[in-house]
Amino acid sequence: MKNVKYNFGSDYIEGCHPSILNKMQQTNLTQQTGYGEDDYSIEAKNIIRKAINNHDAAIHFVAGGTLANLIVASACLRPHEAIIAPNSGHINTHEAGAIESVGYKILPIDTDDGKIVVSDIRQVLDNHNLGPHVVKPRMVYISNSTELGTVYNRSELKMIYDFCKENNLILFVDGARLGAAISANGDKLRMEDMAEFTDVFYIGGTKNGALLGEAIVINNKALQQDFDFFIKQKGGLISKGRTIGIQFLVLFADDLFYKLANHANSMTKIMVDAFTNRGVKFFVDSKTNQIFPILPNLLIEELMRDYGFYIWKKYDDNSSIIRIVCSWATPKEAVDEFVSDVINKL
Amino acid sequence: MKNVKYNFGSDYIEGCHPSILNKMQQTNLTQQTGYGEDDYSIEAKNIIRKAINNHDAAIHFVAGGTLANLIVASACLRPHEAIIAPNSGHINTHEAGAIESVGYKILPIDTDDGKIVVSDIRQVLDNHNLGPHVVKPRMVYISNSTELGTVYNRSELKMIYDFCKENNLILFVDGARLGAAISANGDKLRMEDMAEFTDVFYIGGTKNGALLGEAIVINNKALQQDFDFFIKQKGGLISKGRTIGIQFLVLFADDLFYKLANHANSMTKIMVDAFTNRGVKFFVDSKTNQIFPILPNLLIEELMRDYGFYIWKKYDDNSSIIRIVCSWATPKEAVDEFVSDVINKL
Amino acid sequence: MKNVKYNFGSDYIEGCHPSILNKMQQTNLTQQTGYGEDDYSIEAKNIIRKAINNHDAAIHFVAGGTLANLIVASACLRPHEAIIAPNSGHINTHEAGAIESVGYKILPIDTDDGKIVVSDIRQVLDNHNLGPHVVKPRMVYISNSTELGTVYNRSELKMIYDFCKENNLILFVDGARLGAAISANGDKLRMEDMAEFTDVFYIGGTKNGALLGEAIVINNKALQQDFDFFIKQKGGLISKGRTIGIQFLVLFADDLFYKLANHANSMTKIMVDAFTNRGVKFFVDSKTNQIFPILPNLLIEELMRDYGFYIWKKYDDNSSIIRIVCSWATPKEAVDEFVSDVINKL
Amino acid sequence: MKNVKYNFGSDYIEGCHPSILNKMQQTNLTQQTGYGEDDYSIEAKNIIRKAINNHDAAIHFVAGGTLANLIVASACLRPHEAIIAPNSGHINTHEAGAIESVGYKILPIDTDDGKIVVSDIRQVLDNHNLGPHVVKPRMVYISNSTELGTVYNRSELKMIYDFCKENNLILFVDGARLGAAISANGDKLRMEDMAEFTDVFYIGGTKNGALLGEAIVINNKALQQDFDFFIKQKGGLISKGRTIGIQFLVLFADDLFYKLANHANSMTKIMVDAFTNRGVKFFVDSKTNQIFPILPNLLIEELMRDYGFYIWKKYDDNSSIIRIVCSWATPKEAVDEFVSDVINKL
Repeated sequence: MKNVKYNFGSDYIEGCHPSILNKMQQTNLTQQTGYGEDDYSIEAKNIIRKAINNHDAAIHFVAGGTLANLIVASACLRPHEAIIAPNSGHINTHEAGAIESVGYKILPIDTDDGKIVVSDIRQVLDNHNLGPHVVKPRMVYISNSTELGTVYNRSELKMIYDFCKENNLILFVDGARLGAAISANGDKLRMEDMAEFTDVFYIGGTKNGALLGEAIVINNKALQQDFDFFIKQKGGLISKGRTIGIQFLVLFADDLFYKLANHANSMTKIMVDAFTNRGVKFFVDSKTNQIFPILPNLLIEELMRDYGFYIWKKYDDNSSIIRIVCSWATPKEAVDEFVSDVINKL
Repeated sequence: MKNVKYNFGSDYIEGCHPSILNKMQQTNLTQQTGYGEDDYSIEAKNIIRKAINNHDAAIHFVAGGTLANLIVASACLRPHEAIIAPNSGHINTHEAGAIESVGYKILPIDTDDGKIVVSDIRQVLDNHNLGPHVVKPRMVYISNSTELGTVYNRSELKMIYDFCKENNLILFVDGARLGAAISANGDKLRMEDMAEFTDVFYIGGTKNGALLGEAIVINNKALQQDFDFFIKQKGGLISKGRTIGIQFLVLFADDLFYKLANHANSMTKIMVDAFTNRGVKFFVDSKTNQIFPILPNLLIEELMRDYGFYIWKKYDDNSSIIRIVCSWATPKEAVDEFVSDVINKL
Repeated sequence: MKNVKYNFGSDYIEGCHPSILNKMQQTNLTQQTGYGEDDYSIEAKNIIRKAINNHDAAIHFVAGGTLANLIVASACLRPHEAIIAPNSGHINTHEAGAIESVGYKILPIDTDDGKIVVSDIRQVLDNHNLGPHVVKPRMVYISNSTELGTVYNRSELKMIYDFCKENNLILFVDGARLGAAISANGDKLRMEDMAEFTDVFYIGGTKNGALLGEAIVINNKALQQDFDFFIKQKGGLISKGRTIGIQFLVLFADDLFYKLANHANSMTKIMVDAFTNRGVKFFVDSKTNQIFPILPNLLIEELMRDYGFYIWKKYDDNSSIIRIVCSWATPKEAVDEFVSDVINKL
Repeated sequence: MKNVKYNFGSDYIEGCHPSILNKMQQTNLTQQTGYGEDDYSIEAKNIIRKAINNHDAAIHFVAGGTLANLIVASACLRPHEAIIAPNSGHINTHEAGAIESVGYKILPIDTDDGKIVVSDIRQVLDNHNLGPHVVKPRMVYISNSTELGTVYNRSELKMIYDFCKENNLILFVDGARLGAAISANGDKLRMEDMAEFTDVFYIGGTKNGALLGEAIVINNKALQQDFDFFIKQKGGLISKGRTIGIQFLVLFADDLFYKLANHANSMTKIMVDAFTNRGVKFFVDSKTNQIFPILPNLLIEELMRDYGFYIWKKYDDNSSIIRIVCSWATPKEAVDEFVSDVINKL
């Protein structure tokens, strides 16, 4: 990696919260059953069931988000059923065709801020009434927070969920950055709302302080049957399941998960406030750990010598949108220095 | 897990070698590029290229064996091409249809000891000359060591590889327990032979001291192109690639990989020698860390109270074949106690 | 095609029964709705429902057997579910991996005569109780008549069906040569038994006098939902559905289907009787239009100059098993001449 | 089918040109090898090779368009490779997810008239340079004529083809209505241009006078290998291949193919001229057998009592776009009557 003052490129740039490694060391030589039947995985699942207030949820840990997405699709859908998703949805853009690879068509909805609403979904349904010539829309996929850092709050989620239930659609929420969404929403979205207003969702560990791991939560009992076969078949069942189990055990043991998300969000908030004060505009209004300021190209070029981040896309001839991500581990000092460098050079 | 004196159920019952956790802790807060482009992964790949004496090998790390197998199949085969494999091959039995799930037919060869020879492969080719009505055999899959603890040595591997090259077949070796095979073969199979006599193989970390991880090594340059897309598409590209990179960096840094395999093999050897002395027969002749003694059912029942292991299958009305596995972490004391318990009760 | 006295190579060597072409000509310029909603398809389905005495059956016409098989598998099974089949089953041998291509593992049962029994199926179930590591057997596939010309009668079929129902298995019968089976069984298997003792089956048109076409009959109502999507998605929904509809309309309008099958079976019976009288042995005992006599290699060589047929496999150093097939169109004169040529040269 | 004066719903409403049925009758009882190796198929392929002036083309007949599309995709692409297509492309809308079902992502381009140009394709390439996270665009799919009746002429096709060659893209043209395109282009697109400026294309029989059948033509030799396996595996290899072979033999024997297309196009031209004279507007400018006039809703309602056709979509509050299709068999009388009914009621 290029030597920089700090890399704001993503939230997977550091390792994991030290408590996780400590727990791994304490338990390392204990003998444990494999394939997710270890004591730590079992305990972690129980804690999560409590956290979401759904004692009947089936919970499965897998290593990453793409794996979670393709396993959920494969377990929940028949081959002629399709997935409605925002065009910016991770499954539609950055998973190298994983969903199509397991056989499903994605029906994308145009959106600027990464979010969709009920009328968008209804439109797709209206356009797909010529079965069997067209696919049958059956799942709605959204991300919270989205790939653009925006969030769905409780009432937005509920409206989509209610529409899904009226229309025999499965609602699946990609929660790779769910911690950021909950933290940003304050009391307008709580973890238990995810259990109440989704059929399936997952809780992202990798981007919120874990080494790896996403916790797939299946609330809809009809979708729980034989789910473990899909994890195995798609290569997601790791033999030392303890490795992921411990991540979630530590993250959820004393609200560490929320603390880490709060930290990441608060770091970007410092930037948003400072930049806004100086008149910097943003591509979208994000309260999470991903922000998209619009900066002059010359400044961007200069900043790239000292910091890691991505150019999202061209804004106009003189400026571009960049993506800045803070993580659970981002030091306030790095944020302050970055802000100061930006402000000074504007 | 049931409380037992020791669990000989598999080689993934303990965590990882402590050096790995130490290295993870030392490097934890270092910022590193994601998706396998971190310094540790890069260094680990270089060390492995040296160890196999193939500087042009493409190396990719994935979390587990089933994932490795389905990614290799998907990247190397067209849809009408099939895989010749021993009927006991892991892909044919214990992967929940992973290979078929990505579209390929497995053509199984009957075998008692898990090994196949050139004449077996030729027979399958002879039975598949009615294309396009039949599939086209294109890959040979073997495991080393096999699912029955047996091994292919250098000359056996070479004979299969030479036949494959004459017949336009890809040779893929599942090395989930490659450490055990190399350790058991003494100087009759070295790591560099794997590069010389296979198109693709993988080096199993999970069952030889790592938390997780298999290193896929692609020797055949024609098979290297775009391989990373397959890892991503099948969900195998983890964002904090450092997590697996460090496993292999530590395992290969000072021959730890071989030391751990030697330990595991030497533990089962103690059992084999002791049991053989007492007249115990074995289902197959294994010099690796998996052994299959035949014991009276009454004794097995008694042993299961104190130890973890699997009953492989019925041998006759009074006795069964059991599977005993030792790992890099199995203490000699546990082995001695088990041997003594068996001998005393025989 | 090589010029021969007669080609006994298969039952698809001639075109179709002339009544079918006549009906096509009479109706050719009539305008008809596409995609199987034409009057002829609708009428043909009604006649078949009557013939099988199941007025709730869903019936779909597709062009060929492999297409029928892969569509049924795809519509009835989830990805982790597997198909139990005789090793000689068409799906396991001569469909170029079609079933695996849509993602399913076939669990083959060894058999000499192409037939399986309940104990075979039970054995497969017993070997697959380690889910989620192994696939989940969910469908039993048999052919009637089989690829070896043998047949299941009513009671054999019922036993398998009853076992399937007790074990949550779907019974699917490949009826590419169902006419031959029913004709050969006399009153021991009637068309309505197929509806009573299967979940799904198909009635082969192509090999019994049609130009093309298999009628998939879904008796199990739970399997009927959205089946048309699968036909479309797999490319089986032809726009001029009348083309296949007319085949079945004519075949079933006045029992032509059975008459044609009787003719084909009676032609091979002439051979079987004559050859048996002369001491010729058969590989299997077939009462259908496919027979497998064992003849001296020298005689086979001579016969191949004048007739079309396949050498099935080597029997011993001096003789081989050949496959002779008669069709609805095979003239008695051709059979008599062949018999006479064989007898004279034996 | 509802009783109407005439059904302009599609070009598959009648049977086939009578010469085809005649040829089928003349040859019906001739014995012929199966699976496309019959004399008629062989002869038809030779005539087509001559017609396209490519003697090295591999030609395969399959029953329908969706089957042709999914077979071509499966034979030509690796799993991570994607297909660029207009959003109105048949594979993207009306094939029930067939392409995704065999594992490929479609990258749709927005278009109003069904046509795309080089800059559209370049844009998709530019948006997909983040491999392995995104799919790899590898095939361009267009239809000629398009689903909206528009056509690509020789120079438009050549520009796309040249760009494809420069960018390692495969150009595949869906020619379900290729006859209409060639007829409409006059001398600006000839059949041999299709061989020169595509890698693969197919010639639609079903919608131009055949009972069924599409002729897949593979010009790019690298894509020819093992193609027959794909036809078999996907269920497209019909045993009585003569059935399709004869269609193309008759269609291409004395330019019947072009005559039928000319007739269909000339029938819609009568309508276009008459309607335009009366001030009727069209959704797109089509010179082929599909036209899209914009008519008042009240008139449409009235017309639907007497004629078959589809309402394409709403145009404004008072009028809609309808689709009218003429076929090889549409009588001029029906066209005249329809025109007169429309004009009188406008």
